[in-house]
Amino acid sequence: MSKTSKLKIIPLGGLEAIGMNITAFEYEDSIVVVDCGLSFPEDDMYGIDLVIPDISYLRENEGKVKGFVFTHGHEDHIGALPYVLKELNVPIYATKLTMGLIELKLQEHDLLKTTRRKVVYPGQSINLGQIRVEMIRTNHSIQDAIALAIYSPAGTVVHTGDFKVDFTPVFGDAIDLQRFAEIGRKGVLALMCDSTNAERPGYTASEKTVGKAFDTIFSEHGNSRIIVATFASNVDRVQQIIDTACKYRRKVVIEGRSMVNVITTAQELGYIKIPENTMIPLEEMKNYTDEQLVLITTGSQGESMAALSRIASGIHKKVQIKAGDTIVFSSHPIPGNEKSVSKVINELYGKGAEVIFQDTHVSGHPCQEEIKLIYSLVKPVYSIPVHGEYRHRVAQAKIARLLGYDTEHILMLSSGDVLEISQENGGNARITGSVPSGGVLVDGLGVGDVGNIVLKDRQRLAEDGIIIVVMTLDGEGQIASGPDIVSRGFVYVRESEELMDEAAEVVEDAIEGMLGKKGEWNRIKNAIRDDLGDFLWRRTKRNPMILPILMETE
Amino acid sequence: MSKTSKLKIIPLGGLEAIGMNITAFEYEDSIVVVDCGLSFPEDDMYGIDLVIPDISYLRENEGKVKGFVFTHGHEDHIGALPYVLKELNVPIYATKLTMGLIELKLQEHDLLKTTRRKVVYPGQSINLGQIRVEMIRTNHSIQDAIALAIYSPAGTVVHTGDFKVDFTPVFGDAIDLQRFAEIGRKGVLALMCDSTNAERPGYTASEKTVGKAFDTIFSEHGNSRIIVATFASNVDRVQQIIDTACKYRRKVVIEGRSMVNVITTAQELGYIKIPENTMIPLEEMKNYTDEQLVLITTGSQGESMAALSRIASGIHKKVQIKAGDTIVFSSHPIPGNEKSVSKVINELYGKGAEVIFQDTHVSGHPCQEEIKLIYSLVKPVYSIPVHGEYRHRVAQAKIARLLGYDTEHILMLSSGDVLEISQENGGNARITGSVPSGGVLVDGLGVGDVGNIVLKDRQRLAEDGIIIVVMTLDGEGQIASGPDIVSRGFVYVRESEELMDEAAEVVEDAIEGMLGKKGEWNRIKNAIRDDLGDFLWRRTKRNPMILPILMETE
Repeated sequence: MSKTSKLKIIPLGGLEAIGMNITAFEYEDSIVVVDCGLSFPEDDMYGIDLVIPDISYLRENEGKVKGFVFTHGHEDHIGALPYVLKELNVPIYATKLTMGLIELKLQEHDLLKTTRRKVVYPGQSINLGQIRVEMIRTNHSIQDAIALAIYSPAGTVVHTGDFKVDFTPVFGDAIDLQRFAEIGRKGVLALMCDSTNAERPGYTASEKTVGKAFDTIFSEHGNSRIIVATFASNVDRVQQIIDTACKYRRKVVIEGRSMVNVITTAQELGYIKIPENTMIPLEEMKNYTDEQLVLITTGSQGESMAALSRIASGIHKKVQIKAGDTIVFSSHPIPGNEKSVSKVINELYGKGAEVIFQDTHVSGHPCQEEIKLIYSLVKPVYSIPVHGEYRHRVAQAKIARLLGYDTEHILMLSSGDVLEISQENGGNARITGSVPSGGVLVDGLGVGDVGNIVLKDRQRLAEDGIIIVVMTLDGEGQIASGPDIVSRGFVYVRESEELMDEAAEVVEDAIEGMLGKKGEWNRIKNAIRDDLGDFLWRRTKRNPMILPILMETE
Repeated sequence: MSKTSKLKIIPLGGLEAIGMNITAFEYEDSIVVVDCGLSFPEDDMYGIDLVIPDISYLRENEGKVKGFVFTHGHEDHIGALPYVLKELNVPIYATKLTMGLIELKLQEHDLLKTTRRKVVYPGQSINLGQIRVEMIRTNHSIQDAIALAIYSPAGTVVHTGDFKVDFTPVFGDAIDLQRFAEIGRKGVLALMCDSTNAERPGYTASEKTVGKAFDTIFSEHGNSRIIVATFASNVDRVQQIIDTACKYRRKVVIEGRSMVNVITTAQELGYIKIPENTMIPLEEMKNYTDEQLVLITTGSQGESMAALSRIASGIHKKVQIKAGDTIVFSSHPIPGNEKSVSKVINELYGKGAEVIFQDTHVSGHPCQEEIKLIYSLVKPVYSIPVHGEYRHRVAQAKIARLLGYDTEHILMLSSGDVLEISQENGGNARITGSVPSGGVLVDGLGVGDVGNIVLKDRQRLAEDGIIIVVMTLDGEGQIASGPDIVSRGFVYVRESEELMDEAAEVVEDAIEGMLGKKGEWNRIKNAIRDDLGDFLWRRTKRNPMILPILMETE
């Protein structure tokens, strides 16, 4: 038995893919949870709206959970909170803007009154049971992002959250590199560092460089109406667009629900400065000429229901694209969104607009040299790459090896792993078990009621449709009605009458000889499934779901 | 009435998206068709295997069609041919390798005997009715690619096909720039030029540069087994991998059905040179050590059934990934495939392999400077950007404007447009009508039997599943059996018993008062659909397909 207890680090999500970031830190009777994010469904998760982490472990240890601390206000770090709070009422800690964005969600879910919450500031520390958490200022593509130093008797862990090193941020201060160094000098057991951009060499450019690009675009397109699409949460980006608009004497319209929400919150909290007489409501656009207007909108990822997509496809009620409009994509397509973004670009060009999609975006994550810088300031005993797909975490592991870490000191965790770690004997770390983890699917109001069986059914229905064979048997087991065949999503029935007639014959042949006996329903159903399935595969090379329904007259 | 007839240019596909390239050239009673490609289904075309062009116009004018001429052997230029030949038996013309790849397809579809075909060569001309077609050597990511000069009494059109300018090709000669110049000097009415890379500045690098990258990789990974994934059709790429393998004394294994097919054909026709004792069958891999082996495989786009994907996910029967293997992606993800490629990369890293996905691919399409070069050699009266999404064609139009073309001389066509063009009075061009165009969906053996209704059903089934309400009425219109509710892809029923019980009550309430009357079936069905739909939306915020089935006892 060791003299002190160990610190357990338990990532409950976020290590297999981008999104759903949530990590528990447990020391004896104290659990602190960092972030509580959602992820968006994979392509084959038909009908699923979002995916949230499995928090069974926290539920089982509810008494220990001292609180949730948030690194910043993006969906993949705060989005699952309302769902989790319904099961686990614990206090939450976040910086001012992050808390503002969380409160928008709590309001929607009617959780504002019941949730204990406290705004924290960079530089501050809070005690949560036996664990102390210090907030360290960082930079990211949203303001008020922080890294965390997690102090426990077993040692200190630094968790960067999502970050970049921006020496010249648009708003507020640059990342507090001195504090990273101080904490590092005192001894850090493990560094959990953002891997998202670890495959990219060099440094991520400052947000300020985007401002220059806007200036060029505005000066070169003085006669056009300008529409800029960007991420709703990138308040600094919006600030720069507004500043450029003011310089070129344009009025600004904000469109898109999430954009309006975030900007309103940011303005109320003082994170964005909008000069008077700059903003106008959408309805007043008609009072201005093209060269007096800038529209800032959501939809930079080609999301089908977002404002820009609706504008591009001509179904937006209040904004129509005209030849000569200039549309700026101040974004880069997130992997998986390339085709939907291209679709919007094609539609915009098709309506005669000019589209600009270069030089107006920088990433919010650290490239290789920034990762090296943080390692060199913090000098942890252990490297724990987090945030990103496995390939990105491998890329960070390679950087750690370049910096002299051996394989034993680079810990590649999986979600659900229980890592026990302590500074005893110069540091030791071991995965000692695992807890439930993985995604819980949210579909409409249902949380977790769509599982693998339902998803597999949806996939099969999507591929080849369904054929329903329905018949009614009487008390003697003879046919009272049917068999009738109904299909959906299989073939256009009016043009495939012959095939459907033959299918009916196949069904009649299949059940011949089985009627009139007791307890044969399962055999009848299987015979229909098998024979009809074989017939259809032979004739169409398709494999629809075949659903026999038998009824009995009373 | 003009003195001569006009040349009609009728693109039947290929102008709205990448793929399905097919263009008819019609002069009086002669129609020549260039290419006959397929496209792959969009994400929302559930269950569709491939999409082929609508050739109603050609069918209606079958007597005029003198033949199909192919620019190269890629699927988006030859893939629809077997389907089209079943409706339209006309002669086909292609270069040697292209014809070899076409013949593979004709064999599969049992069309070899009935199809008249003729191998043509760069430099050759053929007369097809009143139209003469000359083949001009180009370079592309597959060998034996040609551009076409299409001569008619109304003027000459140059169609580049897909091409790049490769001054140092791996096999065969560089693009015949002199001939482009000669034809240009004699006067070209219109240039139809590849737009795929028109957004990219500069020049596309030579295929040879990839050979150097392979050399570096092989020399740096001397102790690993090396697996290279690339496009089956890129014979030159495979040649370079084989050459590098020979240099480093490795045996070569080819895996993946399409790769084996293409390489076998290319070898038979003399387009690839494989030194003796280089290739070994997959089964003999076990007789060699890792550093003696290279595996060349399909799956560089993350296609779920391709060899590399099966290897990466551990379901390939004969190849397992081991720690230390080096996997090279000699490819770039085609837009839309980024996520599946990443999935494979993550799986490979997860098994301890090293993955290389940089510097081992060059494009087969011309960048901006190459496009300018071709325009400057051909000097057409009209610019007709082809091949690519709308955004890419717009990018080529911008290049044409830079070169001095005004809007009237840049023709942005849509599929189905009938462009009438002639050299009279220095050139005139006008869209005079349209013919049917667009995609015909192929699902299994069905061609065109899945249309919008079936697709919409599949989309709805995929989103929220189906609920079937079935009941049997007796001769008096009273319930003889049911109503029973069966669902698939909606909720996991065993955990939602309460919801399903309530749904049954909703159905019973809905039909109350309608029973026992004649001719009420439609009203009963509508009541079930409406009331149950409302109930489920209220309770779940989901919108499953509701399918009432009524039966009547005999």
